[in-house]
Amino acid sequence: MTTQQVADRLVALCREGKFEEAQNELYARDATSDEPPGAPVGHVAGLDGIIEKGRQFAGMTEAVHGIEVSDPIIGGNAFACTLRMDITMKGKNRSNMEEVCVYTVKDGKIVSERFAS
Amino acid sequence: MTTQQVADRLVALCREGKFEEAQNELYARDATSDEPPGAPVGHVAGLDGIIEKGRQFAGMTEAVHGIEVSDPIIGGNAFACTLRMDITMKGKNRSNMEEVCVYTVKDGKIVSERFAS
Repeated sequence: MTTQQVADRLVALCREGKFEEAQNELYARDATSDEPPGAPVGHVAGLDGIIEKGRQFAGMTEAVHGIEVSDPIIGGNAFACTLRMDITMKGKNRSNMEEVCVYTVKDGKIVSERFAS
Repeated sequence: MTTQQVADRLVALCREGKFEEAQNELYARDATSDEPPGAPVGHVAGLDGIIEKGRQFAGMTEAVHGIEVSDPIIGGNAFACTLRMDITMKGKNRSNMEEVCVYTVKDGKIVSERFAS
């Protein structure tokens, strides 16, 4: 898959909230994940850890009211999109999360994700 | 300036090749810069160092034949755009450079830039 194809597929799955399906289908086994500085979980190495982090986030979530993902922009082997979630975390008020998501692709698989907000 | 305003201004200046002007106008004094893993210069801290890095790059450049910068996408205090340069570096063949550029904004100034490709 080209970077554009990986990007389009990731965006399509994320728009449906299918984050774990996207990871299993599109991520390399040794992919890495980096949250913005100051986030509780900074760096995660390996797909298993990335999936586990997603499950922990899902476990802290009361309800997802809406997801918006922008079309991707492509630069070489990297691409970026924005993610907006209208979300209620357990024990907290409903709020909007917004971030820029940046991915790099190697041999048709996502090898890194990094979030900025 | 809002993140959107900073993004729009940065993109406008970069489309004209006015990279150093953009840095002087829009960057915080303590801004940081990170190139992709494996780049000769990895992490730079401080606007002076970022400007110096830009001058070194300009000094290695034979000719810039074209610059394309995408419209920015905005997520919270971060934004991203793509940069394509049709460029000849000194002693090398003409080539296309493509990358995703990600910026974070605080108090109306860019506090970090990070490139992925």
